[in-house]
Formats: sequence, structure tokens, C-alpha cells
Amino acid sequence: MNGNHTTGNNTHVHGTSAPGNHASGHHTPLERKADRETVRRHNLSLVLRAVREAGETTRAGVSTRVGLTRAAVSSLVEQLLETGFLSESGKTFSGQAGRPGTALKVARTGVAGIGVEVNVDYVSVCVVDLAGTDRVRLVEHLDNSGVPPDQVLDRAARIAARALESAAEQELRPVGAQLALPGLISAGTVRQAPNLGWTQVAAEGPFAEALAALRPGLPELPVRSENEANLAALAELWFGGLGQVRSFLYLSGEIGVGGALVLDGELLRGAHGFAGEIGHVVVSADGPECRCGSRGCLEQYAGQSALLRAAGIDGTTGAQGVAELERRAAAGDERAVTALAEAGLMLGRVLSGAVNLFDPDAVVLGGIYRPLLPWLSPPASEELSGRVVSGLWPRDAGRLRASSPAADAARGAAALVVRDVLADPVAYAGG
Amino acid sequence: MNGNHTTGNNTHVHGTSAPGNHASGHHTPLERKADRETVRRHNLSLVLRAVREAGETTRAGVSTRVGLTRAAVSSLVEQLLETGFLSESGKTFSGQAGRPGTALKVARTGVAGIGVEVNVDYVSVCVVDLAGTDRVRLVEHLDNSGVPPDQVLDRAARIAARALESAAEQELRPVGAQLALPGLISAGTVRQAPNLGWTQVAAEGPFAEALAALRPGLPELPVRSENEANLAALAELWFGGLGQVRSFLYLSGEIGVGGALVLDGELLRGAHGFAGEIGHVVVSADGPECRCGSRGCLEQYAGQSALLRAAGIDGTTGAQGVAELERRAAAGDERAVTALAEAGLMLGRVLSGAVNLFDPDAVVLGGIYRPLLPWLSPPASEELSGRVVSGLWPRDAGRLRASSPAADAARGAAALVVRDVLADPVAYAGG
Repeated sequence: MNGNHTTGNNTHVHGTSAPGNHASGHHTPLERKADRETVRRHNLSLVLRAVREAGETTRAGVSTRVGLTRAAVSSLVEQLLETGFLSESGKTFSGQAGRPGTALKVARTGVAGIGVEVNVDYVSVCVVDLAGTDRVRLVEHLDNSGVPPDQVLDRAARIAARALESAAEQELRPVGAQLALPGLISAGTVRQAPNLGWTQVAAEGPFAEALAALRPGLPELPVRSENEANLAALAELWFGGLGQVRSFLYLSGEIGVGGALVLDGELLRGAHGFAGEIGHVVVSADGPECRCGSRGCLEQYAGQSALLRAAGIDGTTGAQGVAELERRAAAGDERAVTALAEAGLMLGRVLSGAVNLFDPDAVVLGGIYRPLLPWLSPPASEELSGRVVSGLWPRDAGRLRASSPAADAARGAAALVVRDVLADPVAYAGG
Repeated sequence: MNGNHTTGNNTHVHGTSAPGNHASGHHTPLERKADRETVRRHNLSLVLRAVREAGETTRAGVSTRVGLTRAAVSSLVEQLLETGFLSESGKTFSGQAGRPGTALKVARTGVAGIGVEVNVDYVSVCVVDLAGTDRVRLVEHLDNSGVPPDQVLDRAARIAARALESAAEQELRPVGAQLALPGLISAGTVRQAPNLGWTQVAAEGPFAEALAALRPGLPELPVRSENEANLAALAELWFGGLGQVRSFLYLSGEIGVGGALVLDGELLRGAHGFAGEIGHVVVSADGPECRCGSRGCLEQYAGQSALLRAAGIDGTTGAQGVAELERRAAAGDERAVTALAEAGLMLGRVLSGAVNLFDPDAVVLGGIYRPLLPWLSPPASEELSGRVVSGLWPRDAGRLRASSPAADAARGAAALVVRDVLADPVAYAGG
């Protein structure tokens, strides 16, 4: 529906308004002006996203893709070039539609996003550009378990500040920071992060302040926080090469076992934002005590510490421990192989229940499960094919898969910042 | 956005189109006419639904509610009165907006929906009117287990035909039939209904034919099929008095244990339509064999047969058996009380996992669990409060609740037919 013929522009807006927004059929002139501004902002986003999806295209290509006239697209492109969201190369580019035109791309410099994953035994920072490309990566392995939250957030801010220096050298300007944390987060507060030992921690403010103190004279970055498995699942969706798969269950094996559910390309957050806590699904009612307060949670059988302990490897050695486990399993070490077979069985058992409940297209295993999948997969697949009621989980169907190495929580976090920019570039122009 | 000022009507359409529908900014006159027709059909639906939600209102009330002019509403109301979707009472009715007007209601006669639940030990048929009110109910307790599908569907058609006679006496004219079946249904085919013993049964056609043969000279009803727990959950959402609760997990205890997930007022169907199979979540890996092919499923601990067997009541006595169990438990019979405590524990254990995954506002227990809730609830709540990781499941929070007696799968099925009518009344006018 084309609501603004009177402006002379062939403006265009998608039907994204919630039902009920159009309570009145009458518009005052002031409202009409506001409408025009809203429509133009929306169309700037539309054009920017179209160029991004195409990778490289022309004004004519954008016009075909978004259904706006060539003239309207040219005006919008001009604004996006001026404000630094798009860049133009000298070369001409012959697309499918119309005459050859100058090639357009999203800018490789300027507005960007920074993601900061704070986990039990590492901090990982990622800066992505408008295209979502990983441009700066800084990972430090350190022990955050039991350290007071403020100290952990100070550390994370120092690492983030260093990554921001690297970003500045590449002329990238992150406009927001997204924290990825292994806990239950609601309204900006970490309600519980058992493996960090955090309860009711408001992480965003202290992190923003610590970061600001390290960057005197620079504008303070807005900071938000989200569950790390949710962000890793989004990274998988956006960068994981999942193809046609739009509904999946994501498991992230770390010290804890995080989980996330993506249905039809959308994160399923639940009524309070706590959905996906597969690590605390009970495996054995009277099993070992879990840090969450329950007993016999999946984490106690398939979490990193439990797995290393069962394999006879010191549970505190983190990433090195996992590498050692992989090495031993590859060498046929019986204790390692048995520990992995048992963990795979428990994973498969819990996953079969989750698949019976959610009916996803795939299950994606990330974190420490990625290198260990060759050993975890056979027993897990056996459980899945035997216990998924729909008979929809045939063995070896490739529906249990490793996460992509290109997709992790820090990149998902950074890309989430960029997604906001893409939704309304005008709000982030200049600066 | 108001896209059709040129028509002179103050037409109005909500932004329900999928993005990308408006690929062109240009409209030919023919397209414009099609647009006008589409907009008017949409507005007829809008007005009909507004009257239904209000219960009783005036033209002025509708105008305020939907944001169309009084003149536009009057024209639309006229058409809905002529085609029998609305009725007008002689009395005047003073709403909040404008002068008193004649009271409008949705018609109590005419277009209706019929729902037919075929379960293992009963068939329940329900006819609802446009308001969703239960107008005819016919339940027969019989054993459908192991009976060939065609015979079961013949029986169901005979019961449905009888209910349709009752509907006709009330001048109700169902325009579609919705089957509710205890199985996994995809594209009109029951892929698996273990407790009925059905595999790959296309139920819609045979039921439609059997029903048509019983109603010579009458138009054949279109028939669709859906999982019974999904339909019971929709009934709960629409008629269950859930208040602010828009996300819940629904469990239906019958011979099998069905389940459904509702998130933000929408049924979560999963990638293949098989979501919600909580009855086949594993409780004990080496437990009793289940008809689904797995072992130790929840159904083997908390399904009707398992429960009656554990209580020392013959598992085949169906509804009478459940009544007997309730009677014995109320009288303090130790075996009955113990069986219910154990089933409640297992329910709570599986539910805690489902709540960790899905984070709903409430869990609703229906079917045989409704009368048995006083005994099931304490152990189930204990498990939930101990095992839900978010700490969001305090004991006695009232979040584990019985289903409403007004909401069942047959009524949900009938109301689903009516929902289609409400979405486009023109398609069902006349006849």
C-alpha cells in the first residue's frame, strides 16, 4: 500500500506496524510530516539492508530488490553515502537490471558493533563492521569464577578498551557494546549466573563506567547484556551457514551448558527471557548436586568440569583440558572415550526430550562440544533416533551438527549492535 | 497508513501483509479494484471481530474501537446484518461514544463450527456459534483402541451427524469440521497415533465422506485435522480464563499424555508441526516400553493406564476408572494416594525440564489431571520449585493450574473453524 503519493516521492513502507497502530483514519499535516520522516528513515534502512544482503550491487539492483523507483533509491543512496553507511567503488558493475552502474557496498569503516563475552574461564571480544564481518578479535583465558563481579567487569572493560583501540586503527567506530554472559538475564540484571557465582548483578552500568574511565574524552558507549547461548545461537543463525534450517536448538558446552531455541529465525526467549536452560534439565533425580540448587542436571554429566573429571583430567585446566581430552580420545585412551560416550548418551537423552517438545530442524552443538562431536555424536544420535516420537530423527540424518567456527557469542553480540544500526541508520549517523 | 483516499470511503487496513508483498509502487486500475475489495473484506472482518469482542455494542462503539468513520462502519454493519453475521436488537444502548444506538451482537444462529475429538476411549463433538459459545455437546464413551481407522471415523461421523441435527434445530449451520486426534499430524495425515494404533492415516477424507453419506442432499463439510492437545491448549487460551497468562505449557492427561506450548498467545507447532510431545520425554532410560517405540516415557508413569494400574484399578475402565481413583484417593486409600504422589513427582520432574527450556508463565493440566490435581500438585510443585533454575517457580505461586472445564479439544476445534470465518466472513456468507 502506498500511502504518500502527495509527497511526489515513491516512498515505500513495509507492513511492520502492530495491528491497532492506525487508530485514526485522519491525519493532521503535522502527523503527515512525521509520517514522511518515518517512511524515509524506514526506506534508508531498507536500502542499506538490501545492499548488505547483496554484498555488492548497483542503484538499479537495489531498486529491483526493494521495489522503489530508481529516483527514490538514488536519493536514499546519496544520503547513505554522505553519512558513511555505504561506499561506492569507481568500477562499474553490470547487474541483471538496467544499465551498468557504480558498485555499491556497505562501508568497511565507520559505524560498527562490539561484543564482549564474559565467561567462566575466558573473555572474548569481537568488533564487527556493518557487513557483520569479524574485524577485531581479542581473547584472554583467565579464571573469572568466584571473582567479585566488579573486578570481572573491570577486566572485561580493559580487554574491550584494547579491542576498541584496534578498531579505531581500522577506522571503525562501535556505537554500542553488547555483553554476553552465562546466566539468566532479565531487564539488564543478571539474576543468576551459577558458574560465575553471580546473583542479582546489574552488569551493564559498572561495565559502561569502567570502559568510559579507560577512554577519557571519548563518548560513553551504551551497553546491553544478554545470555551468551542466545547470542551464540543468533551468530549461528546469521553466520553459521545453516542453509534452509530456521528452527534449531543450540547447546553451548562450557563450564556450564547453555542453550537457546531459535524458531523460524527468531530467538525464543520465553515469558521472562529465561528460555533455553537445557543445562539444568534433570538427567538423574538423585544425581550430583548442581550449583543451580537442584540435583542431577545435565551440566553435572556433560558440562566441561564433569567431562574432564570423568576422563581423569584435572577439571580446572579449561581450554587446555579440552584439547587434552580430544588428544587422548583420538589416541584411543579408554577413560577419555568412555567419558565422552557417557556424556554423549546423556546429551542425547536430554536432547530427545527437547526435540519431542520443540520439533526443531536441527540441533547445533557449540563450545567445547564442537571439537568433541566425533565422540559425542554416535551415542547422542542413537538416543535421539530411539526416543524422538515423531520418527523424524533417523540416524545419520545430519541433523545433529557442530556449530560453525565463525559463529560465537561475542560475534553474535557485536552483530546484534549492528542489527540495531541497520534497522534505523539515521539514529547512528554522524559522530 | 491510509492508502485509498480516492475511493471516498474511509477504508482501513491493518499492517498484516508480509514484508515484500508490495513489490511495486504502481497500481493498475484493476489492481486498485482488487485492493478495494480486499480492504472491504478485511474491514468486514475487523467490524465483526470488534462486535464479538465487545459482546454487545453500537455502531459508534465499533467506530471508536476500530478507528473507521461512523459512515464506513454503518455500511459494513449493514452488510454483516444482511448476510446474517450480526444481529440487532430493538433496544437502544448507550455506550461511551456518541448518541445511544441500536445494540449489535454477533448472530446466535447461522454460521457455526463443529469440532470432533476422537480419542482412545471417547468421541466428543462440540458445535459453537460465532461467539464461541458451546451450543451442542455430544460425548460417547467407547473403545477406539485397536479398531481400524475407517471404523473409528465412521463412528465419529455418526456422532457428528447427530450433533449436526441438534445444531440444525438451533438454526446453526457449521461451515467446517475440525478433527482433534491424539497423534502427530502433518499436512492432513496422522503420521503416528500410538494409543489409537494408527500409522500414516489420512483421516480427513474418510471422515468427510462418511459424514456426507449420512447427510444426503446437504453440502459436504470441509474437514481438517489437528493434534488434540494443540486444540485443547487453544481452547484454554480462548475460553480458559487465563487472564494475563499468554505463555503456557499445556498437558492433557488421557490414555496418552499430550502436550502443547503456547507462546505469546500463539501455538508453537515446531518445524514439522510435532512440537509439544511431552508424554514421550524420557523419565527413566530403562523404564517400561512405550507404544512409541522408546522406553521410560512420561506416559509410562503418568498416563491414565499407568496411573490406574499403579493404584490397583483395572486400567481399561477409562473415565469410570479415573472417577474411582479420585474417590479412593479422597477416602485416603494408601495405594491410590501413593500412585498419585509418584505420578505427580514424575510430572513435576519432566515439567521442570520443560519450564527450564521454555520459561512459560504457567503450566495448565487438563484431561484426567484436572480432577486429580489436589493429589498431583504438591509433589509436582515441589519438583518444580526445586529444579527450575531461574528460581522463578516459588512454591504455591499458583502457576501450576487445572485446565478450565469450559475448555477442551472439541471446543477448541470448533472455535478454530469459527476463527476462519471471523477472519473473512464474506467467504462464508450465503448458503
